[in-house]
Parts: sequence; C-alpha cells; structure tokens
Amino acid sequence: MIQFNNFDKAPSYLLLKKEKLANLKELLNKERIENFQIPIISSLKFNYACRPVSKSTLKLLEKIAKEQELIEKYKLLLNGEMINTGEKRKVLHQLTRGQCDKKVIEDKNDIGAFYKKELNRFCEFANKVHGGEIVGSTGKKFTQVVQIGIGGSDLGPRAIYLALKGYAVKKNSFKMKGYFISNVDPDDANDVLADIDYETTLFVLVSKSGTTQETLTNQAFVFEKMKEQKIKGFDPNKHMVAVTSATSPLANSPSYLDSFYIDDYIGGRYSSCSAVGGVILSLTFGPAIFKEFLKGAHEADLAAMEKDIYKNASLMDALIGVFERLMGLPTTAVLPYSQALSRFPAHLQQMDMESNGKSVNREGKKISYKTGPVLFGEPGTNGQHSFYQLLHQGTDTVPLQFIGFKKPQYGFDLKIDGSTSQKKLNANLVAQIYAFAMGKDDKNPNKQFNGNRYSSLIFGDELTAKNMGALLAHYENKVMFQGFIWNLNSFDQEGVQLGKVLTKQVLTGKMDEALLALSKFLL
Amino acid sequence: MIQFNNFDKAPSYLLLKKEKLANLKELLNKERIENFQIPIISSLKFNYACRPVSKSTLKLLEKIAKEQELIEKYKLLLNGEMINTGEKRKVLHQLTRGQCDKKVIEDKNDIGAFYKKELNRFCEFANKVHGGEIVGSTGKKFTQVVQIGIGGSDLGPRAIYLALKGYAVKKNSFKMKGYFISNVDPDDANDVLADIDYETTLFVLVSKSGTTQETLTNQAFVFEKMKEQKIKGFDPNKHMVAVTSATSPLANSPSYLDSFYIDDYIGGRYSSCSAVGGVILSLTFGPAIFKEFLKGAHEADLAAMEKDIYKNASLMDALIGVFERLMGLPTTAVLPYSQALSRFPAHLQQMDMESNGKSVNREGKKISYKTGPVLFGEPGTNGQHSFYQLLHQGTDTVPLQFIGFKKPQYGFDLKIDGSTSQKKLNANLVAQIYAFAMGKDDKNPNKQFNGNRYSSLIFGDELTAKNMGALLAHYENKVMFQGFIWNLNSFDQEGVQLGKVLTKQVLTGKMDEALLALSKFLL
Repeated sequence: MIQFNNFDKAPSYLLLKKEKLANLKELLNKERIENFQIPIISSLKFNYACRPVSKSTLKLLEKIAKEQELIEKYKLLLNGEMINTGEKRKVLHQLTRGQCDKKVIEDKNDIGAFYKKELNRFCEFANKVHGGEIVGSTGKKFTQVVQIGIGGSDLGPRAIYLALKGYAVKKNSFKMKGYFISNVDPDDANDVLADIDYETTLFVLVSKSGTTQETLTNQAFVFEKMKEQKIKGFDPNKHMVAVTSATSPLANSPSYLDSFYIDDYIGGRYSSCSAVGGVILSLTFGPAIFKEFLKGAHEADLAAMEKDIYKNASLMDALIGVFERLMGLPTTAVLPYSQALSRFPAHLQQMDMESNGKSVNREGKKISYKTGPVLFGEPGTNGQHSFYQLLHQGTDTVPLQFIGFKKPQYGFDLKIDGSTSQKKLNANLVAQIYAFAMGKDDKNPNKQFNGNRYSSLIFGDELTAKNMGALLAHYENKVMFQGFIWNLNSFDQEGVQLGKVLTKQVLTGKMDEALLALSKFLL
Repeated sequence: MIQFNNFDKAPSYLLLKKEKLANLKELLNKERIENFQIPIISSLKFNYACRPVSKSTLKLLEKIAKEQELIEKYKLLLNGEMINTGEKRKVLHQLTRGQCDKKVIEDKNDIGAFYKKELNRFCEFANKVHGGEIVGSTGKKFTQVVQIGIGGSDLGPRAIYLALKGYAVKKNSFKMKGYFISNVDPDDANDVLADIDYETTLFVLVSKSGTTQETLTNQAFVFEKMKEQKIKGFDPNKHMVAVTSATSPLANSPSYLDSFYIDDYIGGRYSSCSAVGGVILSLTFGPAIFKEFLKGAHEADLAAMEKDIYKNASLMDALIGVFERLMGLPTTAVLPYSQALSRFPAHLQQMDMESNGKSVNREGKKISYKTGPVLFGEPGTNGQHSFYQLLHQGTDTVPLQFIGFKKPQYGFDLKIDGSTSQKKLNANLVAQIYAFAMGKDDKNPNKQFNGNRYSSLIFGDELTAKNMGALLAHYENKVMFQGFIWNLNSFDQEGVQLGKVLTKQVLTGKMDEALLALSKFLL
C-alpha cells in the first residue's frame, strides 16, 4: 500500500534539514560539470553541476525519493488513480501524448482512445483547413487563427506557439498566423481584432467548463464584432470552433463550425497537449509538427518513470528544488537564452505556482513547511541588462534555471567581430553560469561577487518541436514530483474561488461597506 | 550638511524593526480605505489602505524619512549633486521632463537647456517624418519604426509604447507602428524583420555608450539585411537614426540619417523621457502625446518634493516597501488591470532590481540589512488564472501593487450579462484586493483564506499619456527614496560587469577548465 505522508514525516527529513547549501567555489570543476548531467530525452539534457547539492545531500535526496515513493505515485497517476483528491478526479494529461503504463479504463471506456480520437479529429480538421476544404463563410481560405481563452487555455498554447513559430518557418510548415485574446480588459480584444480580416479568420473558443467569465465575455465580444461586419454572406457561426468538455454548456452548440473535446482529467495548466493546445498548434504549424511535439513530451514522460534519481532529470530537478526551499530560498528564476521561449516563464508561473502554491496537504490538513516558490523570468540576454544586478549582488539568493540551444531557429545568422549572434548569445549564457557560481573577489566591495548563486542548465542542439515537448513535460513532471514530496494536491486551485465569489458580489451590488468603498474608486 | 547614513544607523531603525505587520482583518474599514490615499498627480491616486502599516508604524516611518533626510537628498539630486558616487556622475533624468528646483549648470552649460534642445530636435524630426518631408531613400514615406536597443533602451520605451498605443489610436494620433529588436539571439531580429518592408522603415539605434555588444551586433545584422535588399536606389544609411551620447563612437557618423543626444547623467533604466524613449514615441504617437507624457512625469516629480509623508505618494510607497523588506517579505508583484500595461512590470523589474539589488552602501561598504526585492508581475485578470493561487494560499506572503483605470483606452466595449468588459475587469480588481486583505474562514482548510495579504492600489480615470508619465515617475522616485533609506547608490550596476568579462574570455577562447567544460555544451 502506497503511503501519502507529509514531507516532515519522511525519515530523512530532519537529516536533510541539517544539510547546508553547497559551496560551489570549492566543488565546481570539470568533472562535476561533465558528470552532473541527465538526459531528459536523448536530444535534451539537464545539467545540475551548479545546483547547491553536495554528494551527501544527494544521498539524502535519494532516500527522500524512496521514502516518499515518488515513482510509485507517478505510476498510480499514470494508471488512473484519483490523484486529484480535492476534486475527486484522475490526472491524465500525460495520456494525451501517449500511454506510459497500463490502459486507463473507466466505465468500460478507454480514456486514452478518446484522447487519440480527438487528436485525430482536430488534425484532420487542420488538414482540411490547410487544403481549402474547410473555408470561411464567404468562401475565402482561413489564413489566421485567434484563440480565445485564459489561464491554461492561453499561457501554454501561446508560449508553445511563440516557441515553435521560427521552427515551423524553417521547416516550411508555417501554415497560419496565430493570435490570442485572454484578458477581459476590452483593450485586449480590441487590439487583436484591429489587425484581423474577419473573412479569413478562424476563432478557437477554449473553455473546459464552458463557464469561464472572461472567455465567455470575449466570445460574445468577438461575435458582436463579427455581426457588425456588413459583408454579404458572412456568417459568424462558420468562423468559430470550440474546445470544451463533453458535459459543458458549450458542447454541441450550433454557434460553432465544429467542437473538440477534453475531459475533467486534464487540468487547465496541463492541457497544452490536448485539444486546448492541439487545435491552434496543428492549425498554425500543421499536424506533423504538433505530433512531433507530443512525441518529445511522451519520451520525457517515459524517462520520468526511472527510479534511479541520477538517471531521472525531472525527479532530480524536483528534489533539488525542494532542498532549496527547505534551505529558505523563496524564489526561482527561469532564464531561457532563446527569444522563442519569451513567454515560457509566464506559462511556468501558472504551472508551478498554481500547482504547488499551497498550505494544506492532499487530505486538506495544514502543513508546516514551505511549498512552491515564486517563479519569474525573462529571456537572456535581455535579463542581463535588467534584473541580473540583483541576482549577482542583491541581498537574497535566487536559484536560476537556464535554458539554451546550440543553433538558432531561423537560418540567417551573421559573423560580426569574429563570432555569430548565436555564439555571442551562448558565450553570455555559459559566462553567466560561471560568474554566478564562482563569483570573483575584489578589494572594492562594490565590485565583489560572492558567487554561490546556484543554477541549472537545460540544453540541446536546437529548439525543435520534439525538444519543446520534452521541455514542457520536464517541468510538468518536476512540479508533480515536488507535489508528491510535499504531499500536496497539485491539481486543484481552491485559491482562485474567493475572488470569483467577491467579484459576483461587486457586480450584483451586494457588498459590505469596505468593499463598496473600494469599488467606488473604479466602478 | 546632509548626512548619508546606513539605514541601521537611523535612530528609529530598531523601533521600526520591533513593529509587526499590521492585521488588516482588524484595521480595514471604510474610513481607512477613504483616508489612506495620496494623489500622485491630480488624476492618479495612490491608496495604501491595504498595506501592512498601523498608525504607530506610520509614525516611525515618518521619523525615518526625516532622519534619513530623504527630501533633502532628492533636492541634492535635482540640483546636480554627484549622487551616483560609484561612477562619479550627476543623476538628472527628472530634468529631461522639466526643471523642479534650480538650474543645473556645469562648465557654464545649462544641462536642462541641452535636454530641451534635443527634445525639440527630435520632435521636429518626427513632424518632418509625419509630414513626408523626410522620407526613405527610395522616396517612400516612413510608416514604421524599429528600435534597436537593450535593457533601458528597450524595456521602458517598449512598455510605454504598448501602454499608449490604444490611447494614441483613440486620439487619432497613431502615426507609425513601432517594433523592437533587443536580444542578441538572431531569432529576435529575424522574427521582427520578417514583418518589415525596408523601404518604409526607419530604424532607431539606441546605445548611450556606443559599445553595447548586443545592440551593435543587431545594428550590423540589420544593415546586412538592408544591403541584401536589391532595391534600386535603396540606401541603408538613409534608414537609421542614432540615439547616443555626444562622446560615443557612434556620434556624428555618416551611417545615420540623423543623431540625437543624451549624456552620462541619464542612466539607462531612467532614460525613457530622454531621446532614448522620445524618438520612437514621438515618431509613433506624435510629439504632442510625448510631451503630455513628460508633463505627467514632471508633475509627479514636483509632488515628490513634499516633506509630509502623508502627502507624498512615492515617498509613502517607498517607506512602506522598506518596512515590508524589514519584516522579511522577499518579493513584490506588480499587477496592472490594464492590458496596455502588459510589459510595465518587465520595465519595473529593471528599474527596481538593477537600482536597489545591492549589498554595499554608496561608499562601497558592506551593509547588514535586506535591500531591493525580487519584482514580478503580469496583467490581471490573466494573473488570476495563473499564479494568484500561490498569492492567496501559498506559504509565503507577497506584497502586491495593483493598478487600474475606470475607462478602457479603445472606445468599443460591450454589455454582456448586465455589465461591460471594463466593469467586469474592475469588479475583479477590487474583489481581489478585498479577498487578499480580509480572507475568509472555512472549516475546510483547503478553502481557508487567511487574509493579511497586503496590497496597494494606483488608480485613475484612464491610462492617458499624462497618467502614464506620472506612473513612471512614481516608481522612479519610489526606488530613489528607497535607495536613500538603504543608503545605496541606486544609479550604478557593477553586478553586470563580471558576466561581460567572462563572455569575452569565452569568445576569445581564454577560459579555465571549468568554463571550458561548460562552454562545450553550447559552443
């Protein structure tokens, strides 16, 4: 019987707490750099040489992984156990990219087969759009696609769209431009719609529950704008598809050209590999690139089943992250040296902070230790010219997660002063890792770099669709393992409920005196 | 004689340290909400009712302001004292938007007059571009402008461009589209240039020193791309202007159509009101809107001279922020309920973290207390569907800075289910402030909200150019006052130097064994 125990009940917890952040200035050398490395998949590697762990700390983390039965719990999840205790749901996003272990059957239905069916349906739909078989209501080919969604229906798909745009261009597979409307601020929709030719635009409405206030508002907003178009024969209902759950009020509505389905076992922030991300990504880049992306994620999921922590990248990343929190480090920065990953930190903010930003365990009991960190990030080299000052010389230590690739996505690069832009980019990246770790002594305290600013590096040859899938799965699985260690339910989000209730009070005018005083400033 | 003393030498420091974070659940009521408010300028207000300060804490903060002679130091800065001790420079960005106190004269030169002259020069240039007097080398009108710059030459101008785009559209003053190339990653330039018609494009090269590696690389990259254009009569040198200092190697170069100047007294992260932001903003939105923006900033600068902390918004914000740091809160989130401010948090990241992310005082001596926080943020309502879970129920408390406006920028809005999008947006905003402050008890710990999650609110009628200027100046002056309290030099950035040195080592191949091992992963 697998036990779900609080982290501080693990036999090695107290020993781990007595460990210290490692002194990299003593430990870091060529051997450590070459050996502290694990493949996420064969083309993408995780290097943790500059994380704050000594060999004795790693041994304790290895024990924690066993004591908290992390791989066993991952298998429970994969095989359809009700891991999301709060909402009494299975957690099956890994299944959207492939079957890792057993089939998941519920009421005689093969859930994996359902996901595969939807995948095939939207891929076929995309092919028909690209082939001109499905066209706009006035007979014109669809040339751009606008996703309407918020949170997980926006951040992941948007980050991946930006990440793979250059890759699709190079592969001659950039089919349609993608846009996103998420904020209920009317300026968001107005700004996007100003650029749009409605006759050639396909909208994708994404709401799992079919009740998300912002998304339904933006849908109505877009329909209204479409109705305003006085184009002969133009029919708004032929310009939108829906992605929702089969039980949602939006399912099977005549307002949509077609509908694609997910179920309750795909959490919003884990839905990029389902129809939530799949519809727009196969429309913009073609089904082949989307399937390559799924393949990378699936391979990383399989690799995460490995019990040996020294061979399991997401498990190792998770364990070290938990150790950093135990040592009192409150934040983490994600710093991709790849402009294509510009919005990936924003997606990770949701994935990580909404999953593990919690103070109760999975049975709903208060816990005593620190859980998920604040996460932020911007691409390098931009970040270097912004907040790196604090990272190098500020009064707090912020663990860093670097990401980099040997080659750019677009073909064109140029040698200037003896090196290409890409070489300069990566020279900056490795120089920063080294500078943060080793620091530099100086008689002038203003030029003193203490070092021991910890980081890891995820790297590969190129940001391909496959590597992007693996990168996404790496972080999903890392966050999952951390949730298991902390004994959290990483798959609910009760913290968003109170705001919804109070918003309704404001909109219906049923407020207490203080809330009324606040609302007068803005309503 | 004005004294620059460390914070922990201030007579009230120890008393302040003994204070506690206020219990909002007891303190917050209608009166506090209405009274704890200060105008930044007449059309933009700062409300601190939900910050963690009791009246006794405020009294001590008032003493600290006096003891650290904050207003006196601000006046020294305004009047040209060498406040940037590390680099032995004056700090004069406020002077780019107007003269607050005395004239600043150096070697008989009136520096304010120099800034005004450059302002008039680039406004006139913009007018000529708009009027078709200055055109591209093939005779076509310039219709878009691309800024090439990084750090302060990118983040501020970009944030303000996005902030005022909708405003300019509504004012019928949207003159040209703006783009930005910053990252040395070649995918950044390639992605932007894919959208560009060179014949109608004006580039703005921005580098104060004229030696910024990323920017010079991107300039060469763009020139190379322009040379590739086989358009008859096309001359790349007629498609770029420079913004630099008069002593830079770029000054007076025949490679540029024109050049506009700043000096060493304008730090990169404080340069949005100089030619660094002014050239692109007056080109895209017209000089009138840029001058309105400057006016807002200047009025806020004047208001920041007020000695009474209860009447000085940026001073109050600064003092409370210092108190939050003293109480051990390590991060701050900036959460604008305005899609137009989507990149304003990224600009504040540089402004705040690069200014005060330091461990030595202005004499270069090690200090013992916490300085600048980690700052991050995304627009609401998007953030609600992302990381607010952690903000509500995570194990750390994150002070929040909300920003909101009564009206949207674009004219079009729609009533759906009884309320407009803008009303929904703002209902969410005030509901969140209340939910964070007051929380909600529940027998189920998973649905428990402890409250006492602190926030402030900056609000106004509309995000006009004037309000945007005031908002920018508010944060600049807040960061400045915090630097004075902590006795930092907020205007240098020694923490970025080591990375530059090591990058050069990587590019020239002169590395130690460990750095070489790292570099083999990516070069």
